[in-house]
Amino acid sequence: MVTVKAYAAPSATEPLIPTTIERREVGPTDVAIAIRYAGICHSDIHTVRGEWGKVPYPLTVGHEIVGEVTAVGADVTKFEVGQRVGVGCMVNSCRECENCLAGEEQYCLEGNIGTYAAKDVDGTITQGGYSEAIVVDQDFVLRVPESIPYEAAAPLLCAGITTYSPLRHWEVGPGSKVAVVGLGGLGHMAVKIAHALGAEVTVLSQSLKKQEDGLRLGADHYYATSDPDTFPALVNTFDLIVNTVSSADLDFNALLRTLRLNGTMVNVGAPPEPISVGVFNLFGNRRRLAGSGIGGIRETQEMLDFCAEHGIASDVEVISADQINEAYERVLASDVRYRFVIDTATL
Amino acid sequence: MVTVKAYAAPSATEPLIPTTIERREVGPTDVAIAIRYAGICHSDIHTVRGEWGKVPYPLTVGHEIVGEVTAVGADVTKFEVGQRVGVGCMVNSCRECENCLAGEEQYCLEGNIGTYAAKDVDGTITQGGYSEAIVVDQDFVLRVPESIPYEAAAPLLCAGITTYSPLRHWEVGPGSKVAVVGLGGLGHMAVKIAHALGAEVTVLSQSLKKQEDGLRLGADHYYATSDPDTFPALVNTFDLIVNTVSSADLDFNALLRTLRLNGTMVNVGAPPEPISVGVFNLFGNRRRLAGSGIGGIRETQEMLDFCAEHGIASDVEVISADQINEAYERVLASDVRYRFVIDTATL
Repeated sequence: MVTVKAYAAPSATEPLIPTTIERREVGPTDVAIAIRYAGICHSDIHTVRGEWGKVPYPLTVGHEIVGEVTAVGADVTKFEVGQRVGVGCMVNSCRECENCLAGEEQYCLEGNIGTYAAKDVDGTITQGGYSEAIVVDQDFVLRVPESIPYEAAAPLLCAGITTYSPLRHWEVGPGSKVAVVGLGGLGHMAVKIAHALGAEVTVLSQSLKKQEDGLRLGADHYYATSDPDTFPALVNTFDLIVNTVSSADLDFNALLRTLRLNGTMVNVGAPPEPISVGVFNLFGNRRRLAGSGIGGIRETQEMLDFCAEHGIASDVEVISADQINEAYERVLASDVRYRFVIDTATL
Repeated sequence: MVTVKAYAAPSATEPLIPTTIERREVGPTDVAIAIRYAGICHSDIHTVRGEWGKVPYPLTVGHEIVGEVTAVGADVTKFEVGQRVGVGCMVNSCRECENCLAGEEQYCLEGNIGTYAAKDVDGTITQGGYSEAIVVDQDFVLRVPESIPYEAAAPLLCAGITTYSPLRHWEVGPGSKVAVVGLGGLGHMAVKIAHALGAEVTVLSQSLKKQEDGLRLGADHYYATSDPDTFPALVNTFDLIVNTVSSADLDFNALLRTLRLNGTMVNVGAPPEPISVGVFNLFGNRRRLAGSGIGGIRETQEMLDFCAEHGIASDVEVISADQINEAYERVLASDVRYRFVIDTATL
């Protein structure tokens, strides 16, 4: 066991505080990683505040992790010391179910083992990336291409793959009309990736506040959903809507009606409350409402290589560890362009 | 104009009564059809009772129509007098929008012209199949193969195509696991067609009352959704669920959880009230909730030919016109195996 510095939530209602956590010894197939940066994902906040169910406190969150390999187990073949690597939302899965065998470990039928707050194979509770170091089985470690700066790479491990996966699954490319709902951490990556894939990209945001940014990031069109003219003008338009907003207050029915024939609205944000859907809106144009959660390990590597090839990464604001609690409040206020990344040297 | 015998609803609250309606003269591209049988679809009841919005009374419904060609217009090339033909849920569309051009006239962006209660190109209100004769543009008339008895063919024009279209669109075939929710007019056709396509078919019905029938029609498995063990036993099972039940009371979330990776629940029945969906149920297995409405004309012909080739058709109970009102009550009580068909000789 190794003791490392970390930031942890003592309870659902207290701020995160500096602490130490234990990391396991490096096993035969393990990779030890010195964490350089860890992104702050909205899921981290939902989790530490107990909004997605009971969690074991104290808890260190963070699942957008990049750093360097500092040691490898005897049987590790994929990585070597000094290599630039990343870890995303999961650190293991059953590896035996039909979904794992299909390379879709994120949908492991036993439930994948999350990077934090999950029961690991050894019975301990996994602890996330707001820490100096982590030990992860090599099959759940990603190569981070040299051309992507560490801090800009971190959010790709969650925000990047969460948007890349549905864009690829629904075969977005030249000729596709894609709408991205919400221009936050996930939305800004969805815009960049959809644009790089050759799609015509429309941002649907509550207001026009971030319009200039959206167009700079690669959007072709930008609409305010608060404008009553927006939805009527967009009926029968999109092949794919990527909804990054986790609110049940969104007008799902108006959004569905903007889908053209065989169009899909895929949700990558999940409101905890049920949403209300008029089935008649699905009838027209044979529309679909779908969900998508992160991506498999193979696809995550593909996404990192795609981002390197297309010169894209996340727009980030680097913070020190003592700014985490303030950053959480700013995330909740949508006051971040577009992802906070913790410099772990400040832990 | 030609006056023909028909049954019509005088208002939303009165029983249907015998009457006469006018049919237009046969235009250059028109086909005149002596109707032999007309099926009773649940949509007919929703419509005449005003449950789907305002309708122009008096109204003759019926969109499962079969009969013989009695006259053709000067420019008709597809049909000749004496031929066995059918008419389904629509009698025209704009023919110019991207969906019409794609052969998906049912999703015409101008709205297809329904077989009844719609405004026709000449401004008159379309009147349906509970009548002696109808005049329809040749592009919206189907060939009914010789091997299918008229009365058993009628329901194929709505119940048949409504279930065939999603089964084909979602590429059901050998190896597919398909669930059919509800064993009524649509459900019994979904079972027959999915079985003929080579799928493993499961019926999910409220009770086991129709189990013997379901297995005879081609189902491999039969479950009662009222049994609390059913849904937990079926988690992560189906590639496609065809939901034929038009009730918002259905447990959509439990049904969604029975979908395996990339599985779709397609609704061919539409409850008028919105349904409640937990987005988390769509996240797992990247599930989809979809809608599908009838099918295009090309696909409807394909369906009729498929049914002839596989020796399948609808299970019907032939009634006389004076039994229509009683039949409506029996449809509402799910007391029909599996479709009422009106013998128009009794009008």
